[in-house]
Amino acid sequence: MALLDEALAGSPQALARVISLVEDGDPEGQALLRQLYPRTGAAYAVGITGPPGAGKSTLVDALTRTLRAQGRTVAVVAVDPTSPFTGGALLGDRIRMQDHAADPGVFIRSMATRGSLGGLAPTTSDVVRVLDAVGYQVIFIETVGIGQAEVDVVGAADTVVIVLVPGLGDTVQTMKAGIMEIGEIFVVNKADQGDADRTVTEVKMMLALGPRTGGWDPPVLTSIATAGRGVAELLEEIERHRRRQEQAGTLPARRRERRRREILRAAEQRLHARVLAAAARSQALEALTEQVHAGTLDPYTAAEELLKAL
Amino acid sequence: MALLDEALAGSPQALARVISLVEDGDPEGQALLRQLYPRTGAAYAVGITGPPGAGKSTLVDALTRTLRAQGRTVAVVAVDPTSPFTGGALLGDRIRMQDHAADPGVFIRSMATRGSLGGLAPTTSDVVRVLDAVGYQVIFIETVGIGQAEVDVVGAADTVVIVLVPGLGDTVQTMKAGIMEIGEIFVVNKADQGDADRTVTEVKMMLALGPRTGGWDPPVLTSIATAGRGVAELLEEIERHRRRQEQAGTLPARRRERRRREILRAAEQRLHARVLAAAARSQALEALTEQVHAGTLDPYTAAEELLKAL
Repeated sequence: MALLDEALAGSPQALARVISLVEDGDPEGQALLRQLYPRTGAAYAVGITGPPGAGKSTLVDALTRTLRAQGRTVAVVAVDPTSPFTGGALLGDRIRMQDHAADPGVFIRSMATRGSLGGLAPTTSDVVRVLDAVGYQVIFIETVGIGQAEVDVVGAADTVVIVLVPGLGDTVQTMKAGIMEIGEIFVVNKADQGDADRTVTEVKMMLALGPRTGGWDPPVLTSIATAGRGVAELLEEIERHRRRQEQAGTLPARRRERRRREILRAAEQRLHARVLAAAARSQALEALTEQVHAGTLDPYTAAEELLKAL
Repeated sequence: MALLDEALAGSPQALARVISLVEDGDPEGQALLRQLYPRTGAAYAVGITGPPGAGKSTLVDALTRTLRAQGRTVAVVAVDPTSPFTGGALLGDRIRMQDHAADPGVFIRSMATRGSLGGLAPTTSDVVRVLDAVGYQVIFIETVGIGQAEVDVVGAADTVVIVLVPGLGDTVQTMKAGIMEIGEIFVVNKADQGDADRTVTEVKMMLALGPRTGGWDPPVLTSIATAGRGVAELLEEIERHRRRQEQAGTLPARRRERRRREILRAAEQRLHARVLAAAARSQALEALTEQVHAGTLDPYTAAEELLKAL
């Protein structure tokens, strides 16, 4: 418990250690999460996603700088879809963030996505929870938005920002079902590199086609993050979205729904672990695999037999 | 059952209908899968993946042409990660395949990825199974390889081909953990557009760093699919990999392991559906959500309570 106290007292080393325990699914990490939980709820989480190369990290860096100038503390959880072969390929992006290395008001954590069944999402929301509990006021969840896993990741956010670049066609093609729908603020970054206005129009047209609920009309901004242009405007839109949700009372409902999904997901993870453990102990899975492999049983019936056997 | 007989007799309309039932998770589709299962096992499934724009569809088209010239039947399952906003964005690629529209020896099916929890993989392997049962000899599973879902998709293949383009840096960054590891044949396509030799060298270097098992040294080829260059060589490597697995006896083991994973996955899907159904019937989830939302209970304990209650 000394570790938790140290993290709560502001030790970045202790905080990093707590996060590692949580990420690793360590029982100690689970215990820490339970203890931290009552301290959570004050932070505002902003999901930032978009295709590779859209300049998300630079934008998050610029937003962090602006928030720090306003005296607010910031944590960044960067979920990097790197291959183990290239290891820290995206860490290059993070090097810029070293500007903040001496600033205790900024904490940056890169998470590699893990290739395990069930995806990466569960620990991302847990890491956000830890950062919330130790007092970071704004938490950016940055990821490359191309898959369902990323939709889940930004689902842990209170506001979802989608970063695009001029010249949309190919980009949108690579964005999976669901990612455009979850955007609440759109930013066409690198606005100096191409026809940004046309892309803004295209995004607005797409948004007009899609279903929208809650009376929020997603703004479509432009930015040049490297020059700091459009950053204050983006922050203002994030704040406006926050106020809107607070005034309409939708933020508690959104967070409540998130809690509901988290409980279900945690229940499923536990169930998944139990099924695997039970399958490993029992002979049933091997026997059924043999029959399916031999062609005397189909996998669907085998699945039902397996569940009966466990 | 008339439908199944028609599909087995070679009606592409009946086949398309069977696949739709399977894709929709329809009970009739499940029943058809059970009936088809004993007829499967003769097809050879080749997974083709890589980043957007690598020319995978053109390559699959060229491979299909070559296989047809050899008298072999071909089915293509194209898993398209399109947004509902752009609908058939990738269908442009498929239009080329209309060359084969009048050829009963070729069947092409596009599947949109669905944003549901659990991902798209289960139905992909089911669709492959249907195509196998009705007698297609070679089945290409084509997808955009950037996420875990795609790793699962190509996991349904007997040989996995990864298509890259010259200039690797950015490309590899967008490929998730696990995707390079599963490649058994690498092709640097669009070899006329950039320094393909350098990319070949880079891929070989990365492969040298990674773990390899089974005594197969993944070849790294070049191709210009639009001009048909390198296609025969790629096909020869696929054949060589097939022969290698057959001679070493590893193909049955690989397929057996796949059956094992399919049974587990089908069991989990059923369990997942049951948890959701039970949670919907019971008051437990709502009551627990309320407590977690109020901060009097943490989501991890709530998950355990939920499982106890169901």
